[in-house]
Amino acid sequence: MKLICEGLDLSDAVLKVIRATATRTTNPILEGIKLSASEDYLTLSATDLEISIEKTIPADVKISGEVVVPGKFFADFVKKLSNEQIELSTTDHNTLKIKYTDSEGFLQGLSADEFPIIKDISSPETITIKKSELKKVIDKTIFSVAVDDARPILKGCLFEIENGTLTSVALDGYRLAMYKTSVTSSSSKLSSIVPARSLSEISKLLSYDSEDETIDILLGQNHLMIDDGSVKILTRLLDGEFINYRQVIPSTTTTTILVNKSQLEDGLERASLLARMDKNNLVRFDVKDKILTLTSASNIGNVTENITISLEGKEISIAFNARYLSDCMHTITDEFIKINFNSPISPCTICSAENDSYLYLILPVRIVE
Amino acid sequence: MKLICEGLDLSDAVLKVIRATATRTTNPILEGIKLSASEDYLTLSATDLEISIEKTIPADVKISGEVVVPGKFFADFVKKLSNEQIELSTTDHNTLKIKYTDSEGFLQGLSADEFPIIKDISSPETITIKKSELKKVIDKTIFSVAVDDARPILKGCLFEIENGTLTSVALDGYRLAMYKTSVTSSSSKLSSIVPARSLSEISKLLSYDSEDETIDILLGQNHLMIDDGSVKILTRLLDGEFINYRQVIPSTTTTTILVNKSQLEDGLERASLLARMDKNNLVRFDVKDKILTLTSASNIGNVTENITISLEGKEISIAFNARYLSDCMHTITDEFIKINFNSPISPCTICSAENDSYLYLILPVRIVE
Repeated sequence: MKLICEGLDLSDAVLKVIRATATRTTNPILEGIKLSASEDYLTLSATDLEISIEKTIPADVKISGEVVVPGKFFADFVKKLSNEQIELSTTDHNTLKIKYTDSEGFLQGLSADEFPIIKDISSPETITIKKSELKKVIDKTIFSVAVDDARPILKGCLFEIENGTLTSVALDGYRLAMYKTSVTSSSSKLSSIVPARSLSEISKLLSYDSEDETIDILLGQNHLMIDDGSVKILTRLLDGEFINYRQVIPSTTTTTILVNKSQLEDGLERASLLARMDKNNLVRFDVKDKILTLTSASNIGNVTENITISLEGKEISIAFNARYLSDCMHTITDEFIKINFNSPISPCTICSAENDSYLYLILPVRIVE
Repeated sequence: MKLICEGLDLSDAVLKVIRATATRTTNPILEGIKLSASEDYLTLSATDLEISIEKTIPADVKISGEVVVPGKFFADFVKKLSNEQIELSTTDHNTLKIKYTDSEGFLQGLSADEFPIIKDISSPETITIKKSELKKVIDKTIFSVAVDDARPILKGCLFEIENGTLTSVALDGYRLAMYKTSVTSSSSKLSSIVPARSLSEISKLLSYDSEDETIDILLGQNHLMIDDGSVKILTRLLDGEFINYRQVIPSTTTTTILVNKSQLEDGLERASLLARMDKNNLVRFDVKDKILTLTSASNIGNVTENITISLEGKEISIAFNARYLSDCMHTITDEFIKINFNSPISPCTICSAENDSYLYLILPVRIVE
């Protein structure tokens, strides 16, 4: 292998693919980045066997070839060469020579033959979605996935496609987040569970500013792939049965309040300061006529926040883990939010006052009076 | 105590004084911030018995008084109230009531009687210095103080005043940093050792943009004080004999090189990537005719950096701990730096090519050929 490329292209590409390398592994090849040079391109790829990320950059290739280099070190090194033109070449025994200005480095690599082959998806379904909507799908639900390994299936988001609507659902046993959006799909009914870690990488690739640009999601039996032309992300899907989320969402409601979102957020933040000193992280809600009162207490003090609301239905007193409430605040960008209650021991739902594309559900904590 | 003040003033003041609270203490009063209201002012103060920081803000005081509140919680709380007008008042048993908009918090405080009294310095010497120069004095030397407790006196910077020149020196047994600047002093000869932690807080108070503004350093037998009109910092001095730094600095030199600072910095950074994988963090310098060659190696590769220099004197090969070299790079802002060598086992000195106000000395590591 021998090629010349721009340091800026190379460092940008390395920083993108390195996110797919395995960090805790006994197999050094999974900590590596594969460099493949052919035609006028250098392709960088990395995988931890769950996710793989690949990026291609222009290069003046003199001799085709490939090699796997230690990911972290290579990334740190090329990051410091972003202003230079770089010559990469392999010498004996998979050693990579990095030449720049009057200086050079040698890096002991591994044979690319040992690198896992990243297969393409065979006969996939295609879902076409706006880039900015796909980012919303991910960002508005991913934070609710389970973090512990007790039920591995809950470490992913359910993607359900039915009649042109994509529904993304994440839940962890204490709360649930759901977002619906329109898509064009080659199949009218699909369902798969995508690992949260992979979705987080896909989200980083996307921007809310991309306006009306669309992207294709390729969905196979066991894999999902995104290719935005410059970066390709392939992820394994999670295998198993997701929880029947529909039966968790209450169909009735006895109390509905409309509250200014930033007032609720500020009040929650201050109440949380005390609440989080406690294991339960408890904030109490008292809904009365035109006032929502948030209270929290610990051994060093207490906070009482009064927020003006509009109320429909019965008065109610209920308590929540403050963190689960704060978590959903970034997902609603409207001025007002709607909260629906049923009883102090039934789940409550939170959504935008303006549309029903998003729903967040949270279980209360029983109050001991 | 009862007063009304602006949230922005209060949160700004709290964030400044909280830095003086003790973080690991069994005495809760040292984790607290003392609030004292009198006349038209609220004064906030905190101390860990080594350093104390005090800030005064305007307030509409209805009832004078004082109380000590838990520092960290109070800071977190008022940080979230910077847009509000706040009413602070004490109720029974040193409880502080914080009232804002329609909401309120209660915070269990401690009696201000238990708070350590921060004495003023009696009959101090006065040193007048430009604010921007005092910041240089600190920033160019403080990073070389010892971090371990083996010789506590080395955890401070020596401030020596002689005939209108302030010399600041910090050293840790492996390297030494020294900066000289002109001052006006009420005494022609002074010497004291200021704890690095306190200097770091003083530096944060100062700005390089303050042009020709000056500030007074008040120096007593055991204390140093800075008062910029809004914030007052008082620190205990370290008691003991500093190392005779003059005899460490070589008076002769056999090799002097002139090297572009940013080229050296970039080369060092890349070489360090490999060097730091090793315990010794070793970078080798080979000075020959017009070229300085930096080399470093570890089991995963090696780096050779060639940098054009101008050389005066003998060729030399010498090695350093890369970190100690990189550490001093931020202190020299000129385009070129001068490095003076004597032998592969004698200290080398680094300074600006343009003036001799600053000197950095570093011990080499013996090369085993």
